[in-house]
Amino acid sequence: MINVIDLNSDLGESFGQWRMGNDEEMLGIVSSANVACGFHAGDPAGILQTLKLAKENQIVIGAHVSYPDLVGFGRRNMDLASDELTADVIYQIGALQGLATSIGTTVSYVKPHGALYNTIANDKQQALAVIEGILAINPNLALMGLAGSNILRLAQEKGLKTISEAFADRAYTSKGELVSRREEGAVLHDANYVAQRMLQLVTEGGVGSIDGKFTPIEADSICVHGDSLGALDMARQIKIVLQQAGITIRSFLHS
Amino acid sequence: MINVIDLNSDLGESFGQWRMGNDEEMLGIVSSANVACGFHAGDPAGILQTLKLAKENQIVIGAHVSYPDLVGFGRRNMDLASDELTADVIYQIGALQGLATSIGTTVSYVKPHGALYNTIANDKQQALAVIEGILAINPNLALMGLAGSNILRLAQEKGLKTISEAFADRAYTSKGELVSRREEGAVLHDANYVAQRMLQLVTEGGVGSIDGKFTPIEADSICVHGDSLGALDMARQIKIVLQQAGITIRSFLHS
Amino acid sequence: MINVIDLNSDLGESFGQWRMGNDEEMLGIVSSANVACGFHAGDPAGILQTLKLAKENQIVIGAHVSYPDLVGFGRRNMDLASDELTADVIYQIGALQGLATSIGTTVSYVKPHGALYNTIANDKQQALAVIEGILAINPNLALMGLAGSNILRLAQEKGLKTISEAFADRAYTSKGELVSRREEGAVLHDANYVAQRMLQLVTEGGVGSIDGKFTPIEADSICVHGDSLGALDMARQIKIVLQQAGITIRSFLHS
Amino acid sequence: MINVIDLNSDLGESFGQWRMGNDEEMLGIVSSANVACGFHAGDPAGILQTLKLAKENQIVIGAHVSYPDLVGFGRRNMDLASDELTADVIYQIGALQGLATSIGTTVSYVKPHGALYNTIANDKQQALAVIEGILAINPNLALMGLAGSNILRLAQEKGLKTISEAFADRAYTSKGELVSRREEGAVLHDANYVAQRMLQLVTEGGVGSIDGKFTPIEADSICVHGDSLGALDMARQIKIVLQQAGITIRSFLHS
Repeated sequence: MINVIDLNSDLGESFGQWRMGNDEEMLGIVSSANVACGFHAGDPAGILQTLKLAKENQIVIGAHVSYPDLVGFGRRNMDLASDELTADVIYQIGALQGLATSIGTTVSYVKPHGALYNTIANDKQQALAVIEGILAINPNLALMGLAGSNILRLAQEKGLKTISEAFADRAYTSKGELVSRREEGAVLHDANYVAQRMLQLVTEGGVGSIDGKFTPIEADSICVHGDSLGALDMARQIKIVLQQAGITIRSFLHS
Repeated sequence: MINVIDLNSDLGESFGQWRMGNDEEMLGIVSSANVACGFHAGDPAGILQTLKLAKENQIVIGAHVSYPDLVGFGRRNMDLASDELTADVIYQIGALQGLATSIGTTVSYVKPHGALYNTIANDKQQALAVIEGILAINPNLALMGLAGSNILRLAQEKGLKTISEAFADRAYTSKGELVSRREEGAVLHDANYVAQRMLQLVTEGGVGSIDGKFTPIEADSICVHGDSLGALDMARQIKIVLQQAGITIRSFLHS
Repeated sequence: MINVIDLNSDLGESFGQWRMGNDEEMLGIVSSANVACGFHAGDPAGILQTLKLAKENQIVIGAHVSYPDLVGFGRRNMDLASDELTADVIYQIGALQGLATSIGTTVSYVKPHGALYNTIANDKQQALAVIEGILAINPNLALMGLAGSNILRLAQEKGLKTISEAFADRAYTSKGELVSRREEGAVLHDANYVAQRMLQLVTEGGVGSIDGKFTPIEADSICVHGDSLGALDMARQIKIVLQQAGITIRSFLHS
Repeated sequence: MINVIDLNSDLGESFGQWRMGNDEEMLGIVSSANVACGFHAGDPAGILQTLKLAKENQIVIGAHVSYPDLVGFGRRNMDLASDELTADVIYQIGALQGLATSIGTTVSYVKPHGALYNTIANDKQQALAVIEGILAINPNLALMGLAGSNILRLAQEKGLKTISEAFADRAYTSKGELVSRREEGAVLHDANYVAQRMLQLVTEGGVGSIDGKFTPIEADSICVHGDSLGALDMARQIKIVLQQAGITIRSFLHS
């Protein structure tokens, strides 16, 4: 049984006058922060604010890189050429690293966002473009991706450290895949149930699937959401239940 | 008499499908490249292309930071709050440094662009915001600015190296200020005349002013333009005339 | 004594995934909606949603035109050339009119937003550029602006109908100007006090100034804010107090 | 035999300081102008300039609507939801119609651009979203699309006029489809050959396919490109050859 697990959440997703999420609260809960880099969300001054809070809370920082689609919040598939995607990834990591450097901290991993996240789980060409971008700017950065997905194996083959993540509020098929959001029961809402489920994930190495079987999931990190009051409560509940069971919330990248 | 001078030019200013300037030709002429960072011009894949050419030509690379105004090409004054401007500067330098790192090169200086360049020559608040941004991300970066302007003194007081620049194709007042573009004779067009004038600048430490007097100008670098065939010719002519007079074209930042 | 007054509010200011304000609630209170056009806020699908609600509530629709500055929410001064500003104004009005047409409604007035609103109160060049844009696309559109400001006189001289507005939650000087937000007491927070004050505005043609004198203000419309729960309550309270005093809430543009 | 055909070209594709194409020259050749609306290219002041030239030359004006992707020039597939796409189409047509109104002219048709153009030829969902947008803002607008494609039939079923277009510089399969740009011989470069081919198109109702057979193509309009000197020459040559054969260059939408 593992007794350490990471909790990660998407942060820095405000933009200009628009607020999203509650970075201050969430940075008191998670151990890793996926920080927007300006392509789907985040403006420089706002990102810097989130990075300062992350540093104060000794949270490990990741670059939440995205397609360039602010109005679509990076959630729409885009057919970028590989060289465009690679350069876009480097640009975003560089910008975030620059902001991190300016306050004496650093970026430790990369988590693709939204449509890019989903696409690279299956699309080898876009996956390689992202991996190439990470290797080019800093091969010590880890890549965070969906537990069990091809992108993680591919990244490891190319020499990258990887962080496999499970989603706290999502149902899984018996094959260990996420149940599509379009299907009933795909998204879980009960904080207590979810927290117990995440305890099972850590202690047993898997969770019950949507058709009642046990699904093994090798996860280094649990993704929690924080863009609603309910989501914040769920994140807190997961942390409490895990800690009460003697599990430490920490990223393995934590120095 | 100095026998070394830098030639710098604005590069990487294409955007997506739109071309601007001739980076390939210009990188065969200059010793320093002010590379756009995406706020007034430049997309990641295009910037990367320019950086590769700069590296091949062993050209010193600067971050050409701007207000966030793509449609206005960074040429319109914008009233940014200091914390916004500082973060915008850090973001742009970080992004460019990321792209530079990915091909094994580095950013050595910062040159504010367009309206920001002009504003910080006089506006102390915006000047300090830019300087603060540079110091925060990398205090070893030099700041390139208008010869004789307050921003250079201010930057030196704050501990930054500075590069003072003269404009090859512009007339000067007897006080050493640029003649406003709105006045007749402000912009010089004759390549030979300009080249001789730049030779005078280097050998005598100044040029003839618009009212016929000698104006001393302490310049480390000469800015040349390259967005037209005529401008490229002028840049070439300046280089030829200076080199024939035994002057070396090189940035003092060149390693 | 007038017994009709307009209530207006800024709406359609969400952008993509980011919410701002509560358009549904506010459209149950006001008689005129200043709808964002995409330059400081608003994406086409979101704007269309707001227009549908406005139509259902028989609210008069205005184009809330802005400088092109999404990240700055149109609140930062920008030095646009007159032809740029005129074309930007026409583009925004046209886009909003197109969306309005698509659901069988129409745009009746134009209210410049944020920094543009403040600038044209004094800057004749930018004021004329805005007026020219309105005249060119539709001279029947009214211009909404600050009560007592030069822009309204200028617009009338050029043949435009004007709507002069007072701000419910702002203190006034004895000259009828807004007290700067930087000064203490500039922004009013007590809903009851503000509602009584707006009753005074309508029945007496003015309000008490910050130094205790009566300031005459000729207002066709009262601007209320709706981006917080407190602001919505204030708007509701103003409406209740005015209606109880027998005053009808209606735009004079209402057909 | 038809003796009237339309020539159309993509125009207004400059953006801010970046030039693209030669609108002035091209507007002396074509009879219809597909004018960018700001989503893939075109800023309001620049679009207005192109519209003025189009009006002076009595050219029929179309809205060249696109995905919102400036850096990708609208050439990358994007997976927009139908309501987003419909609203985006309305917004763009409205903006262009606003600019056209401001100079006393009007938009007569809609031509989707780039990736959107290609996608709707086959993707019924996106095609319907575009058609719905056009119908909602102005059912008198015609839709220009690829000769023989499903989108034209679909638009006609929904009550829209359609303009089917052939591409002057592209090879066709024997089924009347465009040969993919990736295949050899897909793009034609010889101006004389292309001009004779377009004469054949008009007089015989089809052209020779890439495998040597005759392919019937029912085209109301011929698309010519103008973003290079060679392309301008080709457009001119086509016009000369057609006119010498007694064919009139005119849009059937011309009033």
